Amino acid sequence: MMAPLECATAAETAAVPKGAPLLKDELDIVIPTIRNLDFLEMWRPFFQPYHLIIVQDGDPSKTIKVPDGFDYDLYNRNDINKILGPKASCISFKDSACRCFGYMISKKKYIYTIDDDCFVAKDPTGKPQNALEQHIKNLLSPSTPFFFNTLYDPYRQGADFVRGYPFSLREGVPTAVSHGLWLNIPDYDAPTQLVKPVERNARFVDMVLTIPKGTLFPMCGMNLAFDRDLIGPAMYFGLMGDGQPIGRYDDMWAGWCIKVICDHLGLGVKTGLPYIFHSKASNPFVNLKKEYKGIFWQEEIIPFFQAVSLPKECTTVQKCYIELSKQVKEKLNKVDPYFDKLADAMVTWIEAWDELNQPKAEANGKK
Amino acid sequence: MMAPLECATAAETAAVPKGAPLLKDELDIVIPTIRNLDFLEMWRPFFQPYHLIIVQDGDPSKTIKVPDGFDYDLYNRNDINKILGPKASCISFKDSACRCFGYMISKKKYIYTIDDDCFVAKDPTGKPQNALEQHIKNLLSPSTPFFFNTLYDPYRQGADFVRGYPFSLREGVPTAVSHGLWLNIPDYDAPTQLVKPVERNARFVDMVLTIPKGTLFPMCGMNLAFDRDLIGPAMYFGLMGDGQPIGRYDDMWAGWCIKVICDHLGLGVKTGLPYIFHSKASNPFVNLKKEYKGIFWQEEIIPFFQAVSLPKECTTVQKCYIELSKQVKEKLNKVDPYFDKLADAMVTWIEAWDELNQPKAEANGKK
Repeated sequence: MMAPLECATAAETAAVPKGAPLLKDELDIVIPTIRNLDFLEMWRPFFQPYHLIIVQDGDPSKTIKVPDGFDYDLYNRNDINKILGPKASCISFKDSACRCFGYMISKKKYIYTIDDDCFVAKDPTGKPQNALEQHIKNLLSPSTPFFFNTLYDPYRQGADFVRGYPFSLREGVPTAVSHGLWLNIPDYDAPTQLVKPVERNARFVDMVLTIPKGTLFPMCGMNLAFDRDLIGPAMYFGLMGDGQPIGRYDDMWAGWCIKVICDHLGLGVKTGLPYIFHSKASNPFVNLKKEYKGIFWQEEIIPFFQAVSLPKECTTVQKCYIELSKQVKEKLNKVDPYFDKLADAMVTWIEAWDELNQPKAEANGKK
Repeated sequence: MMAPLECATAAETAAVPKGAPLLKDELDIVIPTIRNLDFLEMWRPFFQPYHLIIVQDGDPSKTIKVPDGFDYDLYNRNDINKILGPKASCISFKDSACRCFGYMISKKKYIYTIDDDCFVAKDPTGKPQNALEQHIKNLLSPSTPFFFNTLYDPYRQGADFVRGYPFSLREGVPTAVSHGLWLNIPDYDAPTQLVKPVERNARFVDMVLTIPKGTLFPMCGMNLAFDRDLIGPAMYFGLMGDGQPIGRYDDMWAGWCIKVICDHLGLGVKTGLPYIFHSKASNPFVNLKKEYKGIFWQEEIIPFFQAVSLPKECTTVQKCYIELSKQVKEKLNKVDPYFDKLADAMVTWIEAWDELNQPKAEANGKK
């Protein structure tokens, strides 16, 4: 069904009836940016109850304006260097991959991350979509990665498991990741952007599904939520941008890593609703320059991830991730020496994560 | 988005603008039935250009009335016995599983099969849905089983492969099966029917997707199309109904078999659009009696199919199916002696199929 190709106005969004905000004190919104955050005005009714973590990319002397009334912490490159010291090397610069610093510094159980060129989408009836609320619903209901349900999310009101769905699998598994979509400007690579400059996504698919175990997907970081406790340490957005041979693969890298780890640990990854309204296409020529190595590297990286096997001893996300870094070093450095550096950065990331996120008992001085 | 919970009237369907019917001489519609086929009146504008194969179940002395103007062949039990001789034992009696005789006797490349309690569904705008046309579109466009595309069918108008989708996989693979869905009465098992007697499916999900490689799904035979040349010999609906300990698992059985064979041969299976309007729920008490063995057997059958591995030498559907029958005999007969009988029937089915479907060169007397 076709949704209108315009975003909701602030007034339309304000008029949506709202209940108490879900998980108010358990979720941070992470926004990477280089500009003033006027876009938050459009999200005010949905985001204002939550704490924001703003990761300022680029020149740290620039001041980022945040609309009044939002509760936030802002970290620029100087802050990141101060907090992480030499380990700051694992956080990308001049690339939205820097957002993963926000995942690390958060103390909450859940993260929602959104780009600053994303606005409130409407469904085909014109109703503004509360993307965050839908992500939370996705995260709080189980996933079904082991068998496909032809009516999609079986836990949704009005749906269920269909005939032939094994009863032993109907409890589902915990959901670690909720991947949302985009109306208007679709998330295309540079070649597709160049070939289809005017294509817009107006199709509103009213559906959430679990991506089956063993299946990889292209995870986009534009509109993404996850459970830090379940998968946080694997949500590393890699080395991109300044000084690196590649860009625009930060979320893809994280997507491949989280998927194989979720599959190994028996956790769920959902995709589908909610939509945001993606307002403007990035420059396809600039994108092509950032992407072109990724476009051929991925032809070898994806078979690598499809074949990854994690040993039984990997019982935590950290252990899985360290093991994955070893396999990256061993198997992908023949693709390019970059992967050697990336494998090291994966280890640094885990060290930094563990430093900032000590087990609660220890952090409290208890044992 | 919600679709109206009423089917389209004959007049509404007649008013839908139609192009030339697709694959008119290459597709048969297979309908298993025990009653007069008045339901065809509602489908007339969509089905009339095609040849129907009606498989009459139950008492062969009963006359099935078919509305005027349809081109059809009707086979009752006597016909099946006459055509197949002793091999008729593989065709179920007093169960809609008998429909697979129609797949075998057809000489066309494509099959669409539909139940006689299925009517024309409407989308949320009220437009009658030409289910057959959508199935044909699904079958004629490729599938993408090796990597998930987050905007679903990448070949659909207005959609494409998203950023991060490997270019080497964008050609896709041939589509062997198109599994359609149902508005109004959902395809629930007896326990779910009993617990949710009034639940109706009004949600119209405007989407088709490829079920990823390695993922099983519950295939429903109510609204199903496939390519006989690619997968026909695996579309066996098993031994159900009269004289058998189980019913209502005919399509499930076929679904598990075709999926592992499609995965092995590199063929695609799609699910989603088109919807039909399913008019009435079958009796849950009767269903429970038919299903209850299946409900616990499937807990062992599904892990069996998830673990099935077919050797490289299995390069045709027939070879795959014979190999599968051996594995069924070996691994599932510990579940119940029924599977021994079923494994034999799978072999008989292939023998009967090959008898009726000799390679074209041979059938023409050429070599």
